Amino acid sequence: MSPSTANKLTETEKHKAGRANRVSIHADSRHVDREPHSYERWLINKILHMVGDPPLRFRLWNGDLIEPEGGQARFTLTLNDPRALYALATNPNLAFGDLYSAGRLDVDQDLPGLMAELYRHIHRARSHWPKWLEALWRNHAPRSTGLEEARENIHHHYDLGNEFYQLWLDQAEMQYTCAYYESPELSLEQAQLAKLEHVCRKLRLKPGQTVVEAGCGWGGLARYMARHYGVKVHAYNISREQVTYARAEARRQKLDHLIEYIEEDYRNIAGQYDAFVSVGMLEHVGTDHYLELAALIQRTLKPEGFALLHSIGRNRPMLMNAWIEKRIFPGAYPPSIGEFVSICEQGNFSVLDVENLRLHYAQTLSHWLERFEKHRDRVTAMYDEHFTRAWRLYLAGSIAAFEVGALQLFQVVFTHANNNRLPQSRGDLYQSPAAPESH
Amino acid sequence: MSPSTANKLTETEKHKAGRANRVSIHADSRHVDREPHSYERWLINKILHMVGDPPLRFRLWNGDLIEPEGGQARFTLTLNDPRALYALATNPNLAFGDLYSAGRLDVDQDLPGLMAELYRHIHRARSHWPKWLEALWRNHAPRSTGLEEARENIHHHYDLGNEFYQLWLDQAEMQYTCAYYESPELSLEQAQLAKLEHVCRKLRLKPGQTVVEAGCGWGGLARYMARHYGVKVHAYNISREQVTYARAEARRQKLDHLIEYIEEDYRNIAGQYDAFVSVGMLEHVGTDHYLELAALIQRTLKPEGFALLHSIGRNRPMLMNAWIEKRIFPGAYPPSIGEFVSICEQGNFSVLDVENLRLHYAQTLSHWLERFEKHRDRVTAMYDEHFTRAWRLYLAGSIAAFEVGALQLFQVVFTHANNNRLPQSRGDLYQSPAAPESH
Repeated sequence: MSPSTANKLTETEKHKAGRANRVSIHADSRHVDREPHSYERWLINKILHMVGDPPLRFRLWNGDLIEPEGGQARFTLTLNDPRALYALATNPNLAFGDLYSAGRLDVDQDLPGLMAELYRHIHRARSHWPKWLEALWRNHAPRSTGLEEARENIHHHYDLGNEFYQLWLDQAEMQYTCAYYESPELSLEQAQLAKLEHVCRKLRLKPGQTVVEAGCGWGGLARYMARHYGVKVHAYNISREQVTYARAEARRQKLDHLIEYIEEDYRNIAGQYDAFVSVGMLEHVGTDHYLELAALIQRTLKPEGFALLHSIGRNRPMLMNAWIEKRIFPGAYPPSIGEFVSICEQGNFSVLDVENLRLHYAQTLSHWLERFEKHRDRVTAMYDEHFTRAWRLYLAGSIAAFEVGALQLFQVVFTHANNNRLPQSRGDLYQSPAAPESH
Repeated sequence: MSPSTANKLTETEKHKAGRANRVSIHADSRHVDREPHSYERWLINKILHMVGDPPLRFRLWNGDLIEPEGGQARFTLTLNDPRALYALATNPNLAFGDLYSAGRLDVDQDLPGLMAELYRHIHRARSHWPKWLEALWRNHAPRSTGLEEARENIHHHYDLGNEFYQLWLDQAEMQYTCAYYESPELSLEQAQLAKLEHVCRKLRLKPGQTVVEAGCGWGGLARYMARHYGVKVHAYNISREQVTYARAEARRQKLDHLIEYIEEDYRNIAGQYDAFVSVGMLEHVGTDHYLELAALIQRTLKPEGFALLHSIGRNRPMLMNAWIEKRIFPGAYPPSIGEFVSICEQGNFSVLDVENLRLHYAQTLSHWLERFEKHRDRVTAMYDEHFTRAWRLYLAGSIAAFEVGALQLFQVVFTHANNNRLPQSRGDLYQSPAAPESH
C-alpha cells in the first residue's frame, strides 16, 4: 500500500463522515404517490415559462406528464416527490443539483444535452425576468479564499482520493484541466500531452531555466517541463493528496532532482524564476486576491521571464452556479476576460497572447464523463450513489456550460512591461504538432 | 491633376491657414543671449531630478552647459531662450513638443533614443512625485469624439494630403498602421502586406463572404481582401482625402465591383456581414463610445462571423500625452487591455485571440521615420519647418513609446458568445509565411 493510497482511504473516510453535514432536502415520503394539486401543475407551467419554454416535459411523482406549451418535448424531467417541486421553484440553482444527486429528480435522456438546452433557454429568458424572480433565483457570492479557507476549499475537492481521479482522468499525466485538441480526433491522453507541450512552447522554455508553478495538481506539468525541456521546477500545491502522488511519481520517473513539490499556498512562493505558470488554479483565487497575485508574479518573475495563466473564465462577470460553488468547488469563481486581464493591469504587465480553448474543454469533459460512466459502480462503491450522481451532473453540466458559451477557457501569456526580449511571432508554437503521434 | 491631388492642395492650404490658430509660445527674443540666473540653473537641476536624473545635459541660450548630477550625459538638450525653460517647467508634456516644433528646443543626438531614455526615467520617477507636481504636469482629458467632433479630429490628421503620406508610408498599400514583421529583416512593404494577410487569416475569410471595415484609411486592407480572398467589402471612413484615393485605386486595380468605400461615420454602418474589421480606428473612438461600438458589432456581425479590432493600447489606463492629443491626434485615446476587452464584455462577445505586436510598431515607425527624413525638405516645402519638426518628434516619440512599453499594439479577435463554428487551433495562421517573398 503506497502512502498515497493510505492517504486516499483516510480522505474517503473523511468524505463519508462529512456526509452528515450535507445540506439535504428530505423527500416528502408520506405523499409520493398522491395526485398533484392544480396549483402544482400551474407552478410547473410557470417554471417552464420562466426558463424560456425549453422542449421539456415533467413527469410527476404519480406518473402524470406535463407537456411544454406549444412545443415538442425532447427531454423528460421526473420529480419523484412533491417537495422536490417546491425546492426547485424557490431555489433552482441549488435545488436542481441537490435533487438530482439525491435521486429525487431524474433525467431520462442525454444529461449534457438537457443541460445545454436549459442554459440556452434560461440565458435568453432571464433578460425578461421580473426583479423579484431575479432576486429569488440569484446565485450567491462564493466562499472566501483566504489562506485558511483556501485549504478547506481545495481539500474538499482535490483530496477526494487519487484513486478516484485515476479512474477517469487521462493515463498520461493525470491532468484535471482543459486538454488541447489541436486536431479533433486526438485521444484524451494525446490532447493532455499536447496541452502540456503548448504551455511549454508559450513559455518559450530553455534548458537550465527555472520555473515556478502555482497549483500543480498531481504534478504532471512540472514533470513534463523537467523531462522535455530540462528546466528546474518549484511546484506549489495545498492538496496533500496531490503533492504525495506528485512526489512519488517524480521519484519513479527519476525527475526528483529537477522538481521540488512544495505543500504550500501560492501566496508563500519565494525566489525568482524564468517562468511563472499556473494551470487551473486561478478559478480558486478569487478576485479579492488578484492584486496580491499580481504583486506576487511581479516579485517572482525575472525581468525577461514569461508568465502564463490558464483558467476557466467568462465573457462577462457572473457568479458561479450556486450548486457547483457549494457542493463541488467551494470558493470557485471563474473571472471574466476583463477581470482576468485586470491581474496584468494591476501588476503593470504586458499581455502578449490570449487564446480561448472553450470547445476544447467541452471535448475534454466529454472524454472524462465517458470514462466516469464506465466506472460508475466502482465510484459508488468508493463513495455512494449520491456522490456518483452529483459528479455526473457536475461533469455533464460543465460540458453544457462550455458548449453554450457560458464558460470559457483562457490561456493568457504576459511579461514585465519593459521586457523587450519578445518572440518575433507565434509561428514557433506551430512548427510541429504539439501532440505525440500516439499514446 | 487627379481629384485627390486637387483635394490635397486644398487641404494643404487649409493647414497653412490653420497655423494662425496654432497655440504658440513666443520666443523671448530680447534676452536670448543674456546670462542665465542662478535660480534658472537651480530650476534645471530640479527638473532633471524630477524626471529621474536621465543622462542629459542642458545647453542654455548663452552656450552654458548644465551637466546632470552624478552621471555622464549621453544627450544634449538645447534651450534657445529663457522663456522656453519656464514653459518646460510648468507644462512639460505640451511644451516639449511645442518648443521642439518651434525650434526653441533642440536635440543634438538620436531623437528616438532620447525620448526612450526620458520615458524610462520619468516612468520610474513619477511614483515619487509630490501631489502638486503630479497635478501640474498632468495630461488632460482628450477631446470629445462625438459625430461632429470626430469629423474634425480625423480631418485634422488624415486630410493633410495624400501626397504627404505617400512620401514615407509603404509603396504597397499605404498602410498607416503597425506592420507585421514575422521575421525581422522584412522590408516595410513586405511587413505591411504580411499584416494584411495576417488579419485576413485571423478572420478566416472565405470567397464570397461579406466584410465591413470601420475606418479604412486609404483602403488597402479592403483591396487586399477583395484581391486575395474574393470577398465583398463595405469600407467606412470619414476622411474625404482617403476615401477619394481609395476609390480611385480600387478602380485602377479593377476591384471596384467588390468594394464600396463609404464616406460615413462607423456609427452609421448598416447591414450584416461575415466579418467586422477595424485596423487603427479604435484609438479615435473614445471609451465613452465603446458600448455603442459593441452594440454596433453585435448588430452587424452575422451569427458565425468573426470580428477583429487592431489598435494601439496600454498596459493600464493612462491619458494620451497632451502634445500628441492636442497637436497630432485630437481626441485620441489608446485603451488599456482591460478597456479594450470591455468592448467584448459589453457586447457579450467571446474573446478568441489577443496578440500584442508592440515591437513591430517600433520597427514600423523606424522605417517611417527613416523615409520621412529622406523627404524632409519636400515636407518643409509642402508645409513649413514647424510642421516637419512636429512630425519628426511625433514619429520619434512614438518609436520610443513602443520601445519602452508605454504603448502596446493589440489585435483582438472575437465572435458571438454562442458561435460554435470556431477554428480548432491557430495553426492555420502559420502554415505559410504571411509576407510575400519580395516586394
